[in-house]
Order: sequence, then C-alpha cells, then structure tokens
Amino acid sequence: MSLSNLDLVGQCDGFPYYQDDPDLYDASINTYYELRVTGHDYALGYMLPSVAQVFHGIPNWAIDDDDRVLTLVDAHNAVTRSTALEKTLLALRATGHFKVLNKWRNELYPVYGKGKELLFSVERSASPLFGVVTYGVHMTAYVRKDGELKIWIPRRARTKQTYGGMLDNAVAGGIATGETALGSLVRECKEEASLPEELVRERVKACGTITYSMIRDERAGGETGLLQPECEYVYDLELPEDVVPKPGDDEVEEFYLWGIEEVKAAMATGEFKPNCAMVMIDFFIRHGILTPENEKDYVEIVARLHRRFEFPTL
Amino acid sequence: MSLSNLDLVGQCDGFPYYQDDPDLYDASINTYYELRVTGHDYALGYMLPSVAQVFHGIPNWAIDDDDRVLTLVDAHNAVTRSTALEKTLLALRATGHFKVLNKWRNELYPVYGKGKELLFSVERSASPLFGVVTYGVHMTAYVRKDGELKIWIPRRARTKQTYGGMLDNAVAGGIATGETALGSLVRECKEEASLPEELVRERVKACGTITYSMIRDERAGGETGLLQPECEYVYDLELPEDVVPKPGDDEVEEFYLWGIEEVKAAMATGEFKPNCAMVMIDFFIRHGILTPENEKDYVEIVARLHRRFEFPTL
Repeated sequence: MSLSNLDLVGQCDGFPYYQDDPDLYDASINTYYELRVTGHDYALGYMLPSVAQVFHGIPNWAIDDDDRVLTLVDAHNAVTRSTALEKTLLALRATGHFKVLNKWRNELYPVYGKGKELLFSVERSASPLFGVVTYGVHMTAYVRKDGELKIWIPRRARTKQTYGGMLDNAVAGGIATGETALGSLVRECKEEASLPEELVRERVKACGTITYSMIRDERAGGETGLLQPECEYVYDLELPEDVVPKPGDDEVEEFYLWGIEEVKAAMATGEFKPNCAMVMIDFFIRHGILTPENEKDYVEIVARLHRRFEFPTL
Repeated sequence: MSLSNLDLVGQCDGFPYYQDDPDLYDASINTYYELRVTGHDYALGYMLPSVAQVFHGIPNWAIDDDDRVLTLVDAHNAVTRSTALEKTLLALRATGHFKVLNKWRNELYPVYGKGKELLFSVERSASPLFGVVTYGVHMTAYVRKDGELKIWIPRRARTKQTYGGMLDNAVAGGIATGETALGSLVRECKEEASLPEELVRERVKACGTITYSMIRDERAGGETGLLQPECEYVYDLELPEDVVPKPGDDEVEEFYLWGIEEVKAAMATGEFKPNCAMVMIDFFIRHGILTPENEKDYVEIVARLHRRFEFPTL
C-alpha cells in the first residue's frame, strides 16, 4: 500500500462536494436528517436516519420525517438547551442505545449559531451522533538540526481505544466550551508532551485551520457512517534542540524525532491517524516541502484542507 | 471607511456558496452559461448570457439556450481548440465587441480538463469572458529588522489601466501556458522587483495557494459582472536587510518597507488591490499575526481563502 497525499486527504475529507457532482452530493445529503434548534431554521449538523429515529417520542425533541429534520424544542437559551440535551443523552446512555456513548467523556463541546453565539454544549462522545462541527488544536513540534528540519512524532499508546498505536501530531486535543484555542493548546502541551507553558506561549505560532467532513469508520470506534465535520486550529512550535517532548500521560507511547523523508514514508503506509496526516500535509505545504512542482495534486489538496461547511462555525 | 479582513476577502471571493444558501447559489449559477468543449461534458467556466449570445452563428461554436451551454466544437485537441478560439477572438476583437479585448496581451493562459490535461489555451485578456480558472503567482517579500517583521509593499503605477495607484504584493503575475509556477515567479521577480534569479531560487518558499471566485467590477476594466475564478500560488521570500527591491519596469511606482500595523491600516482603508489584500491576509494567518483570539472571523476567512471550484484545476 502506498497512499498519495490526496488519498490521505480523502480519508478525512470524505463527504462529497456539491461543486464536483451536484447529484451525488444531493443524494448523500438526502440520506441524513438535519439537526436544528427552535428559532434557528438552519442545519447545525447532519444525522444518520437510524440515529434520528431514536428521538421519536423523547421530550424536548420534534422530528419531521418528511423534511428529515430533528429539532430541539422548548428550550430557548444555551443553558436550557444544554440541560435538555444532557438529560436525553444520559437516558440514551442508560439504555445502551449508542455505542459511542459508552465512551462518555464528561467534556462539553460548543455548538454555535449563525451569529457565532453559543447555541448549546454537547457531551463530547455524543457529538458525532449529531454531526455537529467540533473544534480542536493540533500542533507540530520541530527542530532545525544542521540545517535539516526534523519533526517530533508521537506514537499513540497501543491500548488507546481509538487509533491505538498510530502516529500522531506532537500535541492535539479538543476545545471544550469556554476554552480558547490557545488555552486548550497550552493545557494539552503540558498534559501530552510535558512542554512548559512559558516556553509554549513564547514560541508557538498559530498557522490557520484545517476543516474537513469525515465519515467515521471502525477505527474511530462506535457507530460507523456518522458524519463528523471538524475544524482543527493548526500550530507550529520550533523547539530548541535541547527540549525533548515527553509523554505526560498514558496516551502516548513514545516520541520520535524524524526527518521529512521518514515522516513521508510513514504517511504513505497509512501509519498516521488520518487527521494528523492532514496536519502534516498542511505543514509540508506551508513550509515549502510540498510544492506545485513536486505534488501533482497541489491545488486540489490545498482547497480540500480548508472545506467550507454547510453549518455555522465560530 | 474601515474594512474588516472578512470584508476584504469578500471583495475577491464574491460568488455565493452553495453551502451558505442553495437557493441564492442556484439563482446565481442560473444567470450564467456553461463553457464546454466537445467530448468533455462539464463546465470549464461560467459566462454572462450577454457574452455567450455573441457566439451564435460563429463557426466552431454550438450554443444551447435551453440548457445554457456554449460548446467549442469540431476541434479535438489542444492545438486545434486553441487555434479555433484564437480565430474567433481575433474576429471579435476586430469588431470591437468586447471592451476587455481592447487590452489584448498576446499571452496565452492554459485551461485544464478533469484529468489535469491541457484542453486549450486562451488569450489572457479574453479569459474573463469565458469565466475559466486562471493561475498566477503572488510573492510577499519581507525582512526581520531588530526582531520586527517588515514587508516590502509596492505601489502600482498610477498610469496602469487596472487598479492604478493601488498597493500590491512585492511580485505578482500570471502563469502562461507551458510555464511552471516557480518559473513564472523567477521571471516576475526579475521584471518587477529586480531580484536576481539565484537569490530567489535559494530563498523563496512555496506556501500554498489562495483560490477565489471574483466578480469583476469597474476597477478591473472592461465589462463588469464577468466571473473570474483565480488560483494564486503563494510564495514567501525573506530578504537580507541589504537587498532592496527596485521597480524593474514601469508597472511599479515605488516600494515601501512597512511594519505590520502600517500594512493593516492600508488594508482597512481599501488601498490594496483586492487579491493582494487576500495574499496579505493569508500571510498574516500563516505567520501567527492574525490568530483565533484576535480575528473574530478566523475560521470563515481561512476557508474562504481556499475555495474549491466548480471547474477542474491543474
């Protein structure tokens, strides 16, 4: 198996584009239900029918099977919506209805409306059921050694339930309700790589976002076919040679310091967690490692690293 | 007048998104005709009806007013298609039918098919009539002076017919048929900024693309309302302090060396050529100058700097 960079992008950015094939796109969209909240008549996420059907008859939910819309009703601000949602999810979890809820995280993810206002928060493990946009941070740590760029690559613990044993970005994590992107990053840098806050704040550089609509497969755990639109804030951290990231918890097995060619080889054999490969490709493009001359799919890749969603974003 | 960065993006990326409003998108698309070539049943560009109508009765062209498709027929390779197109355009130019053809450039721009194959080349000044994707290079030249980043900003000659007197990127130009992005950049660096080839090749860094669908207004010259989808390859060049770009032709009036705040202020007052402001925004994002914390439209801006087109690209 040798995966091209476009193949790697396609693993994450798997949902069709209207621009490519309107009929295929419409056919795909029409297999989902829209998630809405009362008073906001637009989609906040796309849900599998098998998931939406479960909400029939549950208080606080109205389902329209003709228009394929599931609406959270009788709640009119972020607090009451979030409370109603939590109540529903706790009940569904108790019945063991959805496999993804078995990995309850006790972390709340924000969902925003068209005015960038917080509409509600949702338990992290439940967010793929609703197909809402989630936000995270991904940081690439690297050093320049004798003029050569080397990248710190962690291997995920083999015991991790999702993407166990796969390669990752130096630091990555989700952004919870109330957190800023940078705040989340600083916290994860300490937890995952034992990097001190002061060093991170002084040296880290925000470099944009990658956005993609993933269709979850078995590697993500739980139900498959769920739509997961993600926005990852991307950061670079050039480290001094004498600073070595160390696993700060049991999520990382070890860190490697690899040259570009070793990283590329591991990407081509599918060893990276899919969205971490996307982050590496974005890094390679921003740093002139992939160029219009050496990457035949350059233009398509850059556009697909930055999908514009059907849903409002922060 | 104070323009936000999102306003500046909107000046270039003016065509609606299906994701935002399918009805508005469809209504907009339906005002155009599709350009096709025989044997390739997909759009290569969108043309105003007032432009497409002119092709009624011209040899080598078939127009379907029901489906709103204009097709270049009876030509089956890049050479014969380009020749037929040139013949048509020379005739149209002779009749003075289109204002944009008054600025005939004698430069050929490539148009690609779904297999990234060259379908035909078209005279540069005519490309907006057909609404085909065109390619260019834009480079930001900067220096680090006492830890501060300063950017070389040229002012376009006031005598230039398009965007005269506006601010620009250090070097920018179109990519002609047969040119590589880097080859085009090296040539423009010499012509526009007197930067030696050796220095450019050693130091320049490819940093991605920006892609957007502009609707031409009076500042672009010629007919207004034409759709102009553009793909600009973006480059950074960090210059030594003692290298000073100098106008190499009469297109540039002078170069300024500005700090970030001066550049931002000139952007906000609309002094930059619109797509050059896009390139500056992309630069600010990649260099951590705009961040998720200081730019409220961060996520939307990054996605809209990288539109995925309805048309094939290289």
